Amino acid sequence: MTHRHTLRVRYGECDMQGVVFNAHYLAYCDDALTAWMAAALPEAVPYFGSPSPTFDYMVKKAELTWTAPFRFGDVVDLDCSVVRWGTTSFDVRVRGTVDGDERFFADFVQVSVTPGTNIPAAVPDHVKAALSGG
Amino acid sequence: MTHRHTLRVRYGECDMQGVVFNAHYLAYCDDALTAWMAAALPEAVPYFGSPSPTFDYMVKKAELTWTAPFRFGDVVDLDCSVVRWGTTSFDVRVRGTVDGDERFFADFVQVSVTPGTNIPAAVPDHVKAALSGG
Amino acid sequence: MTHRHTLRVRYGECDMQGVVFNAHYLAYCDDALTAWMAAALPEAVPYFGSPSPTFDYMVKKAELTWTAPFRFGDVVDLDCSVVRWGTTSFDVRVRGTVDGDERFFADFVQVSVTPGTNIPAAVPDHVKAALSGG
Amino acid sequence: MTHRHTLRVRYGECDMQGVVFNAHYLAYCDDALTAWMAAALPEAVPYFGSPSPTFDYMVKKAELTWTAPFRFGDVVDLDCSVVRWGTTSFDVRVRGTVDGDERFFADFVQVSVTPGTNIPAAVPDHVKAALSGG
Repeated sequence: MTHRHTLRVRYGECDMQGVVFNAHYLAYCDDALTAWMAAALPEAVPYFGSPSPTFDYMVKKAELTWTAPFRFGDVVDLDCSVVRWGTTSFDVRVRGTVDGDERFFADFVQVSVTPGTNIPAAVPDHVKAALSGG
Repeated sequence: MTHRHTLRVRYGECDMQGVVFNAHYLAYCDDALTAWMAAALPEAVPYFGSPSPTFDYMVKKAELTWTAPFRFGDVVDLDCSVVRWGTTSFDVRVRGTVDGDERFFADFVQVSVTPGTNIPAAVPDHVKAALSGG
Repeated sequence: MTHRHTLRVRYGECDMQGVVFNAHYLAYCDDALTAWMAAALPEAVPYFGSPSPTFDYMVKKAELTWTAPFRFGDVVDLDCSVVRWGTTSFDVRVRGTVDGDERFFADFVQVSVTPGTNIPAAVPDHVKAALSGG
Repeated sequence: MTHRHTLRVRYGECDMQGVVFNAHYLAYCDDALTAWMAAALPEAVPYFGSPSPTFDYMVKKAELTWTAPFRFGDVVDLDCSVVRWGTTSFDVRVRGTVDGDERFFADFVQVSVTPGTNIPAAVPDHVKAALSGG
């Protein structure tokens, strides 16, 4: 299962070299992943509106690799998918393209935690199912 | 003529009080106005891609007034229109709503400048026509 | 009483025109005002760490006026002072200079609220004293 | 040689969970590295003010690993050092601490390019010397 999130680069996100400033790539990924989680798991974390959340997660590691930059006005597709399921963690890849042309990709290690804490917890089966399309 | 720009509030734009951090309202307005200018006046400023720009502008003043905050996940409509034409300046209003409910509005004084400089210049007639829908 | 807050412009805050992107001026002001409030009123709002806050406020209006831009590497002085005390509101001015040369100023209308709510409340006398240096 | 860059977390950089939003860690690193480069290599890239730059670089990869979050008001030390010199690339580590307590670290692969292009070029010896303290 791949979740596609599309956004348009804003003028204020581009720097003096005319390309998107590097920190915004991480913000784009977070936006894509959060939108995916909020859509697939509305009963998850409290800030998605759930009164009794059944799932929460923390980013442990993020690795971004650039091939070419995004520029002002680019319409960016961010394709997100889970590439590894562990017991209490899982890896997600976000691939960023413009008109099908790869510009960067990012790999995230996410840790499942007991909601409201930072204590690792097994990834619930319903989360695996929701994010795997199964 | 009113130009509507729509965006969705990102998680990372919300602060510890659970509302959009105030500086992002200005970023939203800039995004809305820039998108409008780029669409209506593609021959304008160089960073829109024009090799021989016929128009450029600078923000002289911005006044933001809040009624209620935007929150994570809100789909925001920003309605932009020119509310005053001067000789070398013009005023633009941006009104921000969610499901038709006003949350804030902002008034901008824009100064027309000779492209590539910060020297005030008369607002070209084709600019007035393009932004007035005439 | 004037509170001076000093910061250095970051590369990633500058846009394709080589100047600080307009939304960051509002972020700079917020940083200056928040630092002032946190220092002068540590018993105030909860996110400053107070378990029983005696004061909170909301920004109702912000008006920014630019004279000249900030650029990468500029060391910016932001001078903050209360310019009007009302019953439930007060006005703050932030003046931004580089080496004593004014670049912009901003006027804020702040509304005092009952902590944890958005209900207007009289500005406490200890707040007036703390921010007036009296 | 280690370059220390110190900054204070801004309120607007913290998210609804009360911690610094993840993209800002990358912005902090960029600020630390850019300040280091601008100080150690003022004759480098054009946006540092050099009319005839002798060096420029691009970020190829960034890997961030979090141990614990930064919070509002934290005074953050970012210690930067080159951990590998290649022919046309070099690796930099940024370690982020608060009061000596590690919160995160990041590893960057930087590619030396011919100034004004994205063509890889050998890292000049004067750059190695300037960043190694040799």
